[in-house]
Amino acid sequence: MIKSKISNNSKILILGGCRSGKSSQALQLAENMGPRRIFVATCVPHDKEMQRRVDLHRHERGDSWTTREVPLDLAGTIRKTGSSADVMLVDCLTLWLSNLLMENDDEARIKESIRDLAQAVGSAACGVILVSNEVGAGIVPENRLARHYRDLAGWTNQAMAAVCDRVVWTVAGIPVTIKPSPQECAP
Amino acid sequence: MIKSKISNNSKILILGGCRSGKSSQALQLAENMGPRRIFVATCVPHDKEMQRRVDLHRHERGDSWTTREVPLDLAGTIRKTGSSADVMLVDCLTLWLSNLLMENDDEARIKESIRDLAQAVGSAACGVILVSNEVGAGIVPENRLARHYRDLAGWTNQAMAAVCDRVVWTVAGIPVTIKPSPQECAP
Amino acid sequence: MIKSKISNNSKILILGGCRSGKSSQALQLAENMGPRRIFVATCVPHDKEMQRRVDLHRHERGDSWTTREVPLDLAGTIRKTGSSADVMLVDCLTLWLSNLLMENDDEARIKESIRDLAQAVGSAACGVILVSNEVGAGIVPENRLARHYRDLAGWTNQAMAAVCDRVVWTVAGIPVTIKPSPQECAP
Repeated sequence: MIKSKISNNSKILILGGCRSGKSSQALQLAENMGPRRIFVATCVPHDKEMQRRVDLHRHERGDSWTTREVPLDLAGTIRKTGSSADVMLVDCLTLWLSNLLMENDDEARIKESIRDLAQAVGSAACGVILVSNEVGAGIVPENRLARHYRDLAGWTNQAMAAVCDRVVWTVAGIPVTIKPSPQECAP
Repeated sequence: MIKSKISNNSKILILGGCRSGKSSQALQLAENMGPRRIFVATCVPHDKEMQRRVDLHRHERGDSWTTREVPLDLAGTIRKTGSSADVMLVDCLTLWLSNLLMENDDEARIKESIRDLAQAVGSAACGVILVSNEVGAGIVPENRLARHYRDLAGWTNQAMAAVCDRVVWTVAGIPVTIKPSPQECAP
Repeated sequence: MIKSKISNNSKILILGGCRSGKSSQALQLAENMGPRRIFVATCVPHDKEMQRRVDLHRHERGDSWTTREVPLDLAGTIRKTGSSADVMLVDCLTLWLSNLLMENDDEARIKESIRDLAQAVGSAACGVILVSNEVGAGIVPENRLARHYRDLAGWTNQAMAAVCDRVVWTVAGIPVTIKPSPQECAP
């Protein structure tokens, strides 16, 4: 677990590869940020199998969480709902980006959405925890859309890291705080 | 090199991308953990070319190592052989997982094998060094089996990290100790 | 930004995934290493679209930089030009490796080029900043050439890290210094 203090309206980005333990880490952090917790799921189930998984996750989180399914308008949701929550946990940004791309793959429009989200996060009335995937450390994909997606995911992560107080890189379930830097953290 | 002290029966996970220097790092660590060293190779050569490479690696390790080829039963090997060794080095877990998947891709069975290995490592009579690949930081693979494999590899790495005293993230030949955390390590 | 002091003829490797902020980080570091700055671009534009991007980047760097396009002979360029510069910034090594592979994919020849570059960097008369991609933390590619490339990229990164005073791992725009290690950096 992360030892140093998290203030109540901290903005935190949790980054890592697939199955690196990002979501568990995010849930644990949120538990210490106040009782009014909103889980913002960017995954909207399209079939029964997905619905069952989503229900299972909701059950595992327990009654202390309110769940909202928000495939696209994260910025608006944070602006409208932030003042009634202690913490909003968005899981995850890379799926949000997929949703944006599937709706309309115009790069200028997507970059505007990224900037708008960064603005909403940075000025949110409550704590915000963002979960996102690192997808750019493998071989360059042959598929053009995948290359575009990976560029946009990198830009998203940079934009969010810039407005967050804290960035955590997760490896094999272990959280490594990279912002503030370990040197700055030291006593 | 890793500076802080490694106790004799430490459990260590060395993680990193392809050609990040994990195996060299593991061998260097093992040299300081006692003279009775067992190298557990999960790669079983299927042709002359592979056999030559395996023989070359064995030659490079030198006479201070005993080599065992174990494609599947790592937990059993650690339990049966641990008390006669100072250190067992398993290279690597991601290949072990491939071997398990090729034999039988039932998820429940594989998760049971992962839990069983974590139990064997955590309670081993000797030091254990595990080498494993990070495979989840690239773009989502189009191939369903590859997606399944990458989920299982992430779960394997998390399960092993949880029972290890020390986890090392390797980048470009440089070992970065992430467990215990740098803050906890500091004097 | 990286806080600790960078000496004038430091050798620095900036590593990270795609769109992780490596190039911006490299430019920022170079600004503090003296006024005579050479940007060594390994990308040679093949069409008008690429030429426009290259011109844009050159314009963004401003007049304090001299730009050289060097697809292959990085070692020779560093040896010949180093004494007339304060800092040379090479962006990026993974593209240089692609150029080498496209010219001739003989492994022994490429490994010799990697060793030669490491030698030139280590003994350069000026500061050198190398930008390179981590490409080995995704799933194993099905394509044989991609697997070969990723092995070579890993070896390149290890060879350069070994001769550099400082290695920076970049995630979401955040520089994490991994050499010297955080423990060694601490006061």
